[in-house]
Amino acid sequence: MESGYFTEESSADVVIARNSNAKDARLSQVIAVLVRHLHAAVKEIEPTTEEWLTAVKFLTDTGHTCTDWRQEFILLSDVLGVSMLVDAINNRRPNGASESTVLGPFHIADAPELPMGADICLDAKGEPMLVRGRILDTAGNPIASAKIDVWQANDEGFYDVQQKGIQPDFNLRGVFRTGPDGCYWFRGVKPKYYPIPDDGPVGKLLGALGRHPYRPAHLHYMIDAPGFQSLVTHIFDPDDPYITSDAVFGVKASLMAKFNWTTADKTIAEAGFSSPFHLVEHDFVLAPA
Amino acid sequence: MESGYFTEESSADVVIARNSNAKDARLSQVIAVLVRHLHAAVKEIEPTTEEWLTAVKFLTDTGHTCTDWRQEFILLSDVLGVSMLVDAINNRRPNGASESTVLGPFHIADAPELPMGADICLDAKGEPMLVRGRILDTAGNPIASAKIDVWQANDEGFYDVQQKGIQPDFNLRGVFRTGPDGCYWFRGVKPKYYPIPDDGPVGKLLGALGRHPYRPAHLHYMIDAPGFQSLVTHIFDPDDPYITSDAVFGVKASLMAKFNWTTADKTIAEAGFSSPFHLVEHDFVLAPA
Repeated sequence: MESGYFTEESSADVVIARNSNAKDARLSQVIAVLVRHLHAAVKEIEPTTEEWLTAVKFLTDTGHTCTDWRQEFILLSDVLGVSMLVDAINNRRPNGASESTVLGPFHIADAPELPMGADICLDAKGEPMLVRGRILDTAGNPIASAKIDVWQANDEGFYDVQQKGIQPDFNLRGVFRTGPDGCYWFRGVKPKYYPIPDDGPVGKLLGALGRHPYRPAHLHYMIDAPGFQSLVTHIFDPDDPYITSDAVFGVKASLMAKFNWTTADKTIAEAGFSSPFHLVEHDFVLAPA
Repeated sequence: MESGYFTEESSADVVIARNSNAKDARLSQVIAVLVRHLHAAVKEIEPTTEEWLTAVKFLTDTGHTCTDWRQEFILLSDVLGVSMLVDAINNRRPNGASESTVLGPFHIADAPELPMGADICLDAKGEPMLVRGRILDTAGNPIASAKIDVWQANDEGFYDVQQKGIQPDFNLRGVFRTGPDGCYWFRGVKPKYYPIPDDGPVGKLLGALGRHPYRPAHLHYMIDAPGFQSLVTHIFDPDDPYITSDAVFGVKASLMAKFNWTTADKTIAEAGFSSPFHLVEHDFVLAPA
């Protein structure tokens, strides 16, 4: 190290010292951490030159797969658990508050606000579902005027934005607002599991790792209320075939909600259906802002 | 961990466990090491969602900058010291053997074989230079029939392949073969420092880190001899303004060779020049195969 020249032993220190003139202290810190871990990983892996070139080619292919409408590096972050880790770090909540999970790419900002109880399924496809629950604070009190933005895939595992011209615009999306009792309820259809895009480099990597590309069936929620932290999360069907192997690691034990197939005539009538339906019940607890 | 679902604490273990069906044990090992270090780095950095998106955008821009003739991810590897680290790991040599450094992107496979002493400068531009030395084994014995492939930038810091139509084809390149004395010598011009391509995302990163893009002046060597390990290396001008700050960390203390400006009439005549020239002397020691 006395010369400051590169050696295998001093490699990370030499690189980090070179960055000491960075104007932005945060950038300098981030790069130092990345360089230290990257060099440590390379020393542990001891890649051949060919393996290093394979990594270069993989990153290049991943970049070339990115377009205005496809983000292959986010997919890579997702399948390596990095997206969920960043989500976890940025959404630490007090005990008892509902846990977050990834936003995903299918949220849209201008979904219509609907009266409580509305059916967000606009094309009558799939098995009917009623979802209901309460929005609560950590003391168990109902939260009024909470804005509940929900979106979901259809019975074939596609979001409306993936099937423009096939599904109606704003199909299976809606915004609801709670009253003083904090209750919410809406109708939809049972969503299906679906694959993340797996025809690119990330899909090939998943295949080589012996992994499937599927996400278990889920409903998306973005819940906002004055005085509380925003909550972006899903609830999952615990009986989904992929519930223990979500390709993007989005499942948390606290985010399960049974899809109860309900056949009793009285319950069907009370829920406003004319045939059996899935009843899904889940409360959300918001953390104080 | 009992559920196997993702938590901030168990994140790397959960991801690595998911890859347990990989068919290729080496791939499985490489990904496990990368995931462990990547998650550790993210936990240390605690990026905001915006910072994570900045990283995604940087990688995407880097990928989009790659073309058939430009490899921005190799540049990124270079400026983070990863290329030199991979080179070091793959070229550990016994004590006394010459050290390697990066190949770089400007080697071509079919440079002409020339008689010892030939001038590789085909356009008479720049300050004349005579380079000489010996190819030795680790016991100090000369190596006969060593193939010495040399290439260099010109007096303005450009390789022939960067200036097609401006420099003659094969300018400042040549292949020489040693005789029984192991000696080599050839003529050229004093090379100049030059920048790595800095008009892309990697150049912007260097700027943000307060770093310049320059590589100090150097001569490239690729030396092969039967029974010995191939040696890919440079020799550097120790008086170059960038000698302690090579943008790609290629400089090693053992790879210095003075460019001695030689003005004595007798020496000029003996070297076959008619005016002062740079005399560069450097021996290379090859490791046994």
